[in-house]
Formats: sequence, structure tokens, C-alpha cells
Amino acid sequence: MRIDILTLFPEMFDGALNCSILRIAQEKSLACFFTHNIRDYSEDKHKCVDDRPYGGGPGMVLKPEPVFNAVEAVEKIDAGLHRQTTKVLLTPQGKRFNQAIARELSGNDRLIFICGHYEGFDERIREGLDVFELSIGDYILSGGEIPALAVIDAVVRLIPGALGDDESNIDESFEDGLLEYPHYTRPFEYRGMKAPDTLISGNHKKIKEWKHSQSVKRTRERRPDLSGLCINAALKD
Amino acid sequence: MRIDILTLFPEMFDGALNCSILRIAQEKSLACFFTHNIRDYSEDKHKCVDDRPYGGGPGMVLKPEPVFNAVEAVEKIDAGLHRQTTKVLLTPQGKRFNQAIARELSGNDRLIFICGHYEGFDERIREGLDVFELSIGDYILSGGEIPALAVIDAVVRLIPGALGDDESNIDESFEDGLLEYPHYTRPFEYRGMKAPDTLISGNHKKIKEWKHSQSVKRTRERRPDLSGLCINAALKD
Repeated sequence: MRIDILTLFPEMFDGALNCSILRIAQEKSLACFFTHNIRDYSEDKHKCVDDRPYGGGPGMVLKPEPVFNAVEAVEKIDAGLHRQTTKVLLTPQGKRFNQAIARELSGNDRLIFICGHYEGFDERIREGLDVFELSIGDYILSGGEIPALAVIDAVVRLIPGALGDDESNIDESFEDGLLEYPHYTRPFEYRGMKAPDTLISGNHKKIKEWKHSQSVKRTRERRPDLSGLCINAALKD
Repeated sequence: MRIDILTLFPEMFDGALNCSILRIAQEKSLACFFTHNIRDYSEDKHKCVDDRPYGGGPGMVLKPEPVFNAVEAVEKIDAGLHRQTTKVLLTPQGKRFNQAIARELSGNDRLIFICGHYEGFDERIREGLDVFELSIGDYILSGGEIPALAVIDAVVRLIPGALGDDESNIDESFEDGLLEYPHYTRPFEYRGMKAPDTLISGNHKKIKEWKHSQSVKRTRERRPDLSGLCINAALKD
């Protein structure tokens, strides 16, 4: 998978793209990352990328021209090599990102992320480029860079082989519409708090039941809105 | 505001903490950031921080001891200097982060972020440390580092003076329970797409009405679940 990131702050990605799963995915040639500075695509002699909003209001708005130029130039690179490309525009107004969308995006072999910054971007970027608008949650961030990192991490870890142990994706929260059960590791007792006896019983059936019941209990307490509870109730009927 | 980040990957923060709003907040002495490697607090001679889960299952689980040690050591630093501290544990099982929680957290003068990584962390970390469990959304990431960055960015930009223009927080999506209206900037016409005439009319009342009606329209189309629509309907009655 080839991932291109269009941003005004390429240096925000230096650390995060070269750690943990994202580093491993590059080393295994499962994913490669390229950052592009939108400023390099400005036709303005001062390399200006933003301007005051029409109609007044606070802050600066990202101009259409450098973004259109950047997207078109980047799309041309290795265009023939890719089967399926999605252009993702990070915006609080987009579709709310979730695990199902992560799975969907992991089916692409190319993703292009467009990160706005400051007050927002000119509406014609949304209108004129064929983009998938995505939001990582109902909170306001300074730009699309951190959201892009979140989406990239969620997607890349779903590429087969990216995780050391392929199973690691199965038991996770949300994958079955339930939160995950509690984890325990050595020592058995820590500061008076013990791990549950069931987990060291060696009885695999009991352990499996304990994990499932804990998942259901936790989901009911914390996230009764998640779909796993309905599925679980339906199975019981 | 003092922000401490406990992580196994301090280098993930290098880029993002030193760009844009977070850099400016440091330069203005509104916020300072410290990363701490949880591995440095392991009592194990191999500096081991994780172990296989009790009861089996994929992946590795973050052990309680290095995390307790790290939190307790970091809490002691400058402890007398701070009025209100919150310890935030990033986990998909936590309360869903939103703009109201960002506002709440921005009232602290110290935040400590605990970032898990890999399969998960030992349940006793949740149980034994007085933490606020927070999730940035319903998707699975490799660790708490990117979520911590999201929360930090959302919170720090609310500190008075962090944004160049203090007004910039008012018009944003979610602040009034509505999505933001579309933005336009020069050129007036780009590739056949024109900015709305109203915005260059100079009629401030009309511009304000246009912005509000666009916010309502967009929220209705994209996020009918947001509270702003009810408030708006109530005002009309």
C-alpha cells in the first residue's frame, strides 16, 4: 500500500511514521509513506497557501489552488501501478471514522490524505476533488495531521502481516461490536490486586466463557450503544 | 499547563509537539510537554515491560509494575506547583472524547497521559491508579500515542492565548452543537466554481444568516444526531 500525505506540516509525521507497527510495515514492504508539502504547490511567488475568508470571520482559509495542484501532481506519481485509490479529506464534518471504515480502506492499494490546517479549507476543495470526507471524532483539532495518523495506523495494522501475530486483530474492541475483556499478566498478585483465578485454571472452556461474559458486562456498563449487545441478545433468544 | 506523557515510544511525539499550535503554546509559555519512557521504570534487569496474557490469547500485555512506578515518579515532579491534575489513560474502552471533555480538561494545570501499546495493559493499571479513561473513537490503534496527541491538541488550543485570534474557537464545528458553515477565500471563481455572492455583498446581517442556515443545513444532512439542531428547532418555536 502506498500512502501519500499532503500537509503544511510534513515534520509532524517524522516521529510517528517511523515507530512501532508503521515502521515494521515499511520494513516488511507492506506500506510506504510519502509526505508532500502543500506549500510547494503554491503558484504564488511568496508561496502563500491561505487567505482571509470571504464574508469575514476569524482565522485563515486554505486556498483551493495549491491543494488542487498538489493532489493532481501526487496522483500522477506511479498512477498506473495502483488498482484502487481513495483520497481522504480529514474534516470534523466528515463521516465518523470507525473500525468498519478502517477495514474498507485497508482494501485499497493507495491512499492519499489531504490535511487542512488553521480555520478550514476552501469549500471548492471538497466540491471539486473526488474526496472521502472523514472525521475521527467530535472534537476540534488544529489540523488534519493527527487524524491522518490515526486513520493510517488503524488501516495499516489491518494489512495482513503487519502485526507480529495475525490473530491480534480478532479479539480487539469493536471487531465484534463488543469492548474487549480485561487483560492480566504476571505477577499474579500486584499490590494486593489479584488476577482472576479462572485465567490460571487451565480450563479453556471456562476461560473462553469468562472472557466473553466480561466483554458483555463491560460493554453493557460502558457502551450500551454498541451493536455487539444486540447480537449477543439475539443469540440468546 | 504542564503535560507529561508516559509512553514506550517517546520519539512518536517529537514531530507533532513541535509544530503549529503546540509549538506556539510552548513558545508563549502556555504549555510545556515532557515525555517519559515507561521502560526506564521497569525493575527488571532486561527492562522488560510486557508479558504474555494469563489465560492465553494473542499479543503482549503491558505489566503493572513499570506503569505504577512511572506514574508515581512523574506525579512527584513539581507536585506542589499544581492546583489540579488529571491522569488520562487512553483506551478504546474509555469515555468517548468530545469537545465538552476538551473544555473540562483545559481547566487543569497539569495533565498526565498514560499510553498503552500492543495488545493492551494489565487491568490493575485501570483499577489501582486513579485515571480518567478516554477513547478518541471506535477504532483500533496500535497504542495510546496518537490518541494522546489528539487530546493534547484539542485541549491546548483552548488555553486562552494559544490561538493567534481568540475568536477562532467560537465558530468551530461542535462548539454550538452544529457543524461549521462552508468557507471560501480568493479567488472568487476557481475552475468554474464560484464563491456565494452573499459573502461578498457586504451585508453583515445577510452574511450572518447565510452562515447560520448553512450550518443548520449541513448538520441536518450529515449529522442529524448533533444537539445543535434541537436547540435551533426550540428557538424557532
